[in-house]
Amino acid sequence: MASKPSIPKGTRDFGPVEMARRNYIFSTIRSVFELYGFSQIETPAMEQLSTLLGKYGEEGDKLLFKILNSGDAFDDGFRTALASDATSNALALKACEKGLRYDLTVPFARFVVQHQSELCFPFKRYQIQPVWRADRPQKGRYREFYQCDVDVIGSRSLVNELELVQIVDMVFGRLGARVLIKINNRKVLAGLAEITGHPELLVDITVAIDKIDKIGLDAVKAELLDRGLDEKAVAVIEPVLLLQGSNAEKIARMREILADSETGLLGVSELEQLFALVGGAGIKSEVEIDLSLARGLNYYTGAIFEVKALDYQIGSICGGGRYDDLTGIFGLPGMSGVGISFGADRIYDVLTGLNLWPAYAENQSTALFANMGTAEQAYILPAAAALRAAGISCEVYPESSKLKKQFDYADRKGIPYLLIAGSQEIENQTITVKHLKSGEQKSVKILELPEFFLSLRSNTAG
Amino acid sequence: MASKPSIPKGTRDFGPVEMARRNYIFSTIRSVFELYGFSQIETPAMEQLSTLLGKYGEEGDKLLFKILNSGDAFDDGFRTALASDATSNALALKACEKGLRYDLTVPFARFVVQHQSELCFPFKRYQIQPVWRADRPQKGRYREFYQCDVDVIGSRSLVNELELVQIVDMVFGRLGARVLIKINNRKVLAGLAEITGHPELLVDITVAIDKIDKIGLDAVKAELLDRGLDEKAVAVIEPVLLLQGSNAEKIARMREILADSETGLLGVSELEQLFALVGGAGIKSEVEIDLSLARGLNYYTGAIFEVKALDYQIGSICGGGRYDDLTGIFGLPGMSGVGISFGADRIYDVLTGLNLWPAYAENQSTALFANMGTAEQAYILPAAAALRAAGISCEVYPESSKLKKQFDYADRKGIPYLLIAGSQEIENQTITVKHLKSGEQKSVKILELPEFFLSLRSNTAG
Repeated sequence: MASKPSIPKGTRDFGPVEMARRNYIFSTIRSVFELYGFSQIETPAMEQLSTLLGKYGEEGDKLLFKILNSGDAFDDGFRTALASDATSNALALKACEKGLRYDLTVPFARFVVQHQSELCFPFKRYQIQPVWRADRPQKGRYREFYQCDVDVIGSRSLVNELELVQIVDMVFGRLGARVLIKINNRKVLAGLAEITGHPELLVDITVAIDKIDKIGLDAVKAELLDRGLDEKAVAVIEPVLLLQGSNAEKIARMREILADSETGLLGVSELEQLFALVGGAGIKSEVEIDLSLARGLNYYTGAIFEVKALDYQIGSICGGGRYDDLTGIFGLPGMSGVGISFGADRIYDVLTGLNLWPAYAENQSTALFANMGTAEQAYILPAAAALRAAGISCEVYPESSKLKKQFDYADRKGIPYLLIAGSQEIENQTITVKHLKSGEQKSVKILELPEFFLSLRSNTAG
Repeated sequence: MASKPSIPKGTRDFGPVEMARRNYIFSTIRSVFELYGFSQIETPAMEQLSTLLGKYGEEGDKLLFKILNSGDAFDDGFRTALASDATSNALALKACEKGLRYDLTVPFARFVVQHQSELCFPFKRYQIQPVWRADRPQKGRYREFYQCDVDVIGSRSLVNELELVQIVDMVFGRLGARVLIKINNRKVLAGLAEITGHPELLVDITVAIDKIDKIGLDAVKAELLDRGLDEKAVAVIEPVLLLQGSNAEKIARMREILADSETGLLGVSELEQLFALVGGAGIKSEVEIDLSLARGLNYYTGAIFEVKALDYQIGSICGGGRYDDLTGIFGLPGMSGVGISFGADRIYDVLTGLNLWPAYAENQSTALFANMGTAEQAYILPAAAALRAAGISCEVYPESSKLKKQFDYADRKGIPYLLIAGSQEIENQTITVKHLKSGEQKSVKILELPEFFLSLRSNTAG
């Protein structure tokens, strides 16, 4: 085999350093989810295509990775379809029954319906798994990436929304990144569409105003006209787009604007209650109402969330909201839920950009035992076992190579201590502990090596 | 949508309890790997089919899940092949360039070759990811399952073999399951084939003797004859299959039997050195030489490992060995490595069968705050935040439902404490802590709630 092997475009290998950092993000998020009583689930990578199709729009259907049926995928049914000039999508469905999951939301809905009798509602779950999309790969967009979703299903209480805000606040507090949590309510947007006289244009209106940050006021107004609103309707929406002031001021103003819409007022009231809860919860992050926040997905019915890093320029790093009928598509109507998704790749970029990786996220061994030969190896092996029994990670260089080579190994892996024992040390029952960065070295009794590192750890804890 | 949704056959959903238990297994294994300086990597679920094909034998190629090309999978090339009656495998390759990974070994070899310039050798990696096989599903055999592999590549030292034995010993020590670690050496088997006069039948011989536990001595002898050995050659092998005694006795006897085979003697010498290392390492598990241990895979060249649970009847729960040329298939020859794979599904069954799950593996919240209404909710929310800030997991029931319903929720989820605050408690600035199992209850100052649980934890630690 001649050419160097490669991986499919849009996919990635994660090496030791990236993995250690990704694990740091995931374990931070997990630990917060668990403090709030969320339980982890996992669903299969492959779902029936019938579960996935039609859930992400026509464009989404095209982006599903389809898995060729095992056995004879190209049977008579397939051949007949091929001969009759079926579309390439129809042909794919003849040859494929399964697809790779596209997100964690539809599999979660499927899971809830399939296991409803075993679950305890309100059901609080989190899920951290990769998803696959046959998107055109580009910078920051991959064909395989992890999603990290947390949802409560089976409760309409705003305490759930509060907890999601608290979770976001605690996660980024622990990661050390300052964030802005933006909140809106889909009912407010629906009310707005209602008072323009065009409730049927709700989706058009929200898609347009979702772009205000990117394209500016004038372009949004042009787009609204383009999408079928008249000048008068645009004039109703404009002050909402321009709304400034405190959260309380925004709420008061929206209550005036939406006075004639029952749905709109309900949305305002939900926002008000949520901000009252958030206000009393000692949240450290900034939390603000952003009435231009719409998000693309059409299934949100109440609160909408988006989180941005304050000190680093990147798109939203979390997003979510409340949906009143997620499981209806699988025959279980009326299950209200609310959830939020953490974008691991972007959070990774934020922590890298702000230099927020703690040293321990590198996850390296504390020490490397140099290997000076057979007798020396026999001397150090029990010491290595003793360190590990005390919970101190270490390695024994497996070959008695030149010390320079062993030194380089420790250096490249970022192992802080090199432990050297030659005939002199064996005679004295000691070992030489060399701190590689400072060059300092010290002789330690071999039997006291675990204590030496344990005391080191307690001195530098934190 | 009428019928209840389902998942593809041979795949599984993992609910909260299963996930918590699986996480307990994985985190135990990971923590031991890291104590020994192994670093985690991840590779994509999808690999190029050219990377996977031909690596698992003809049967394996058929078991690969293939992914339909995006865009027009059924192009002219495909149509021509279909018209010319190509085999269904050849057709699949026209329509599919990618496949799901079948194991973690081939992707690891591909990773090492692709990233060789960035890696630090000897490279110690572990990898815990699902793999997919289009096998016929049956009890205990799935189409998606996790593998959990640990390997060192780039070192021939037997210290690596020793460390794998130590890792197995420590993992099962921590999990509380007694195991037997069986070791053989492929060179001993090669030597055996050599002295029968049929070195070319090495694979046939190993496949046959691998079955001794299942089919017994006579059937193995019959199979050996069937595979082309004569009676004399079978007579050479028979005493090896019947070998009894201590590890030292087995080694001494094999040295006699293999006196005329250089390769065989090298294998005996490797076994002897490894057992000398193991003997000095304070291993608590039983470790024994099993000369009938062959394992199916043909790429092992030195040590072969297999681990069995002592107190529970199930197949091997770990397996592995040394391979001298894993990366040669991708153009990087001469990289010797050794590794072992932990079978998570079987380990799960062992822990369940022996009732070895620790209570904390359930991962439940410590307490549930009952929700008695708006004023009470406002009273308990800060207390919940204080508990979480102290690292104590808890939940606030989101609705002010009947207490019975809230009680049932805690009971079903296995949450040990219910916390109740009504008007009386608010007046006294207390909260009633009810231990659900014993029914005992106690009044605690609301501000002292974190200390109450922290002291509880330190009293029952371990």
